[in-house]
Amino acid sequence: MGDSIISHVMLALLATTVMQQQTDNSATNQDEPNVVIIFTDDLGYGDLGCYGHPTIATPNLDQMAAQGMKFTDFYSACSVCTPSRAALMTGRLPIRNGMWGNRRVLFPNSPGGLQQSEVTIARALKQVGYETLCVGKWHLGHHPEYLPTSHGFDQYFGIPYSNDMEVEKRGDPPLPLMENETVLEAPVDQTTLTKRYTEKVVSYIKEKKDDSFFIYYAQTFPHVPLYASKDFKGKSRRGLYGDVVEEIDWSVGKILDTLRQEGLAEKTLVFFTSDNGPWLIKMLEGGSAGLLREGKGCTYEGGMRVPALAWWPGTVKAGSVNHELASTLDLLPTVAELTGAKLPQDRSYDGFSMVPMLEGTGPSKRDHMFFYRRNELYAVRLGDHKAHYITQGAYGKTARKLERHDPPQLYHLGHDPSEQHDISAKNPEILSRIDQLVKDHQASLDPPPSQLDRKAEKPKS
Amino acid sequence: MGDSIISHVMLALLATTVMQQQTDNSATNQDEPNVVIIFTDDLGYGDLGCYGHPTIATPNLDQMAAQGMKFTDFYSACSVCTPSRAALMTGRLPIRNGMWGNRRVLFPNSPGGLQQSEVTIARALKQVGYETLCVGKWHLGHHPEYLPTSHGFDQYFGIPYSNDMEVEKRGDPPLPLMENETVLEAPVDQTTLTKRYTEKVVSYIKEKKDDSFFIYYAQTFPHVPLYASKDFKGKSRRGLYGDVVEEIDWSVGKILDTLRQEGLAEKTLVFFTSDNGPWLIKMLEGGSAGLLREGKGCTYEGGMRVPALAWWPGTVKAGSVNHELASTLDLLPTVAELTGAKLPQDRSYDGFSMVPMLEGTGPSKRDHMFFYRRNELYAVRLGDHKAHYITQGAYGKTARKLERHDPPQLYHLGHDPSEQHDISAKNPEILSRIDQLVKDHQASLDPPPSQLDRKAEKPKS
Repeated sequence: MGDSIISHVMLALLATTVMQQQTDNSATNQDEPNVVIIFTDDLGYGDLGCYGHPTIATPNLDQMAAQGMKFTDFYSACSVCTPSRAALMTGRLPIRNGMWGNRRVLFPNSPGGLQQSEVTIARALKQVGYETLCVGKWHLGHHPEYLPTSHGFDQYFGIPYSNDMEVEKRGDPPLPLMENETVLEAPVDQTTLTKRYTEKVVSYIKEKKDDSFFIYYAQTFPHVPLYASKDFKGKSRRGLYGDVVEEIDWSVGKILDTLRQEGLAEKTLVFFTSDNGPWLIKMLEGGSAGLLREGKGCTYEGGMRVPALAWWPGTVKAGSVNHELASTLDLLPTVAELTGAKLPQDRSYDGFSMVPMLEGTGPSKRDHMFFYRRNELYAVRLGDHKAHYITQGAYGKTARKLERHDPPQLYHLGHDPSEQHDISAKNPEILSRIDQLVKDHQASLDPPPSQLDRKAEKPKS
Repeated sequence: MGDSIISHVMLALLATTVMQQQTDNSATNQDEPNVVIIFTDDLGYGDLGCYGHPTIATPNLDQMAAQGMKFTDFYSACSVCTPSRAALMTGRLPIRNGMWGNRRVLFPNSPGGLQQSEVTIARALKQVGYETLCVGKWHLGHHPEYLPTSHGFDQYFGIPYSNDMEVEKRGDPPLPLMENETVLEAPVDQTTLTKRYTEKVVSYIKEKKDDSFFIYYAQTFPHVPLYASKDFKGKSRRGLYGDVVEEIDWSVGKILDTLRQEGLAEKTLVFFTSDNGPWLIKMLEGGSAGLLREGKGCTYEGGMRVPALAWWPGTVKAGSVNHELASTLDLLPTVAELTGAKLPQDRSYDGFSMVPMLEGTGPSKRDHMFFYRRNELYAVRLGDHKAHYITQGAYGKTARKLERHDPPQLYHLGHDPSEQHDISAKNPEILSRIDQLVKDHQASLDPPPSQLDRKAEKPKS
């Protein structure tokens, strides 16, 4: 696959052409909502008050849930950062968009990134006249051709990869804070990041209140190392991890307040979720998956089931709890349906529009979920059943052993959300149905090369 | 201690005399609220939607939380049934009221029960003119002198001990449903118990709406064996356990609806909680403690920290989350303060009034919690720290081993609610403070004989 900027630009033009051919409504429609996606980093299923955490106080997110919809069975698309983000942005599994690898995420010395042939939510929304802003951690490639501003965002303000990725012996550069393609500050002062992200989002909302806008606010935290501003440090009963989550809670509150003050609440969908489960090996600096098994990095529920809240006063029913299956993969088709943005039809998507759930007009169109690690399918959920073909935990020595299961382990996630009681022996017919689903899925795949395992062809300037 | 009915009656008269001497306001006051305590059996910390359970749908309890106060750090007074109930009813630890034993609860062949010298919430409220009803599982003695109607309740409708206590080889009688002192039905049809309990509570509220009333509704479930009515059986995604909890949720909803319909919402405090943590060894028929360690029967958090909701529209702030320490031991002093009921001053209490928390006028008066098993103090919480002098889990072979710790294990429950990271080595001064608290506590004790280990002196007629 070509690696120069020119070939990427050509691919981008091609994708744009495909979309325009399929677009019959590219004008801005005042009825189409603004979209704000708030994507936290390593926040666990059990880390919010409204998901049962006893000592992290999240009054703003609890109120967001009370005024909107709380999902109990919402998944990130992968248990680690880069592939999870790539899937959210494209509505496609990492195995389709190339953002998988034995190096499980991008590093400062990685040459790869999200290909221009991929259409992000931002680029799709540009086609229908949206203003687009990316704030926070990108982690889909830090070279110019992969940055947010090369993927449909008018503006970018944030860090290009994880906040722990400044490893001296690897020769990493100081962690930069970027504005568009420019380094503003390096190393970035992380203690004020949440405040600065919040200010950027708030001022953008005020500035664009008469336009249609899309904001992708990808929080740097609670990924370690943890930093809270002086207003929050030392305030939470949960210690520094709680301070950081409580500052994120404050940030979300400021954003919802701004939308209300600007009269935009009823025309803005705000979706809050996390990129994967809690990083348990970080001990007290990692979060909690609540009653779910395991955490970040693995395909048990704790690795990929995440908190998710939808807020859109007047459309999303206040105080609703949604127990259906949904995923970050579904955000792109949801936003496309809401805004009239057309997606290229020359590729497979893994998402399903959540519009019927959000509007209360029908059930989820999703009945399954695939759980990948690298390019291997580890587990599959179909309805309430989940089959584990391969398991590999992340927390505790024995748990980290990779085990292949034939027949797969089978859990009923309704009866047994903590994945404790293997019921495979008594349910061969369910396993057959899941096997068939896997066959159909695998037949649909034509995996591109890994972007994460790419080696630098020549030193970057 | 005397065992005949006559000596119990004499003690009761004595206690009443003591109370009357101290009572300066025994008339009913219209400003004093009705009190409804709903006490579930073996419901775990993680088993309600508002505490993060993904597949048990509890819309009524979630709404109760949204309209009232949700406690994150509320404890039952013991990790098993009988002593937990005795403590709630008397505001005194089992080590003080005699309801402890090597037999950890009462059985159908137990001769003992709650002594007449103890003053229950019901008897205290009779002194200030309340009508009193006990519905459900009593488990504080099933012989006549120990039944609810001998302990201050005008009426009783329920089962006298746990719903699994009909063991043929032990010669147990069929499980009875009782009305006052009379067996109505034996064995009781458990499938309709929740419905019948609910009907009884609802009709009592309607009947007594012009009086002041106290209802103690001690649910039989979700203690095993699990039974749901045909309206609920097979309906929950969580299986039979979920069916049963969802029927309890319905029951609570009916009670709150009735209070609203009768215009009593603003003059009734409804308090919902559980007698101990989930019975984990029952596997899928037991509940979940969420992120807390262990369950029923042990002194880790999962054994004794329980869901707790307070509802009193107009007084308890809607949607509030209370992170302070509180306990079922606090219900008696709370109710006494709210109603003007006076308590005998010739004994020690272990409760603290929660009125400041409920009314939003001040913090919890409780800064510690004792965790007993039988007559041994296993653990102590002081502020956010918890010291384990003895540990003995309930779930898993290795966990069941009794271990004594010197120095005690120490956990910071704020930072580490799952009790994973022992910090005793670095905190000798905190351990000293807890040691002193233990010494002061133990100096205040004068334990009466165990009622649970009493042997029958002669066959009961």
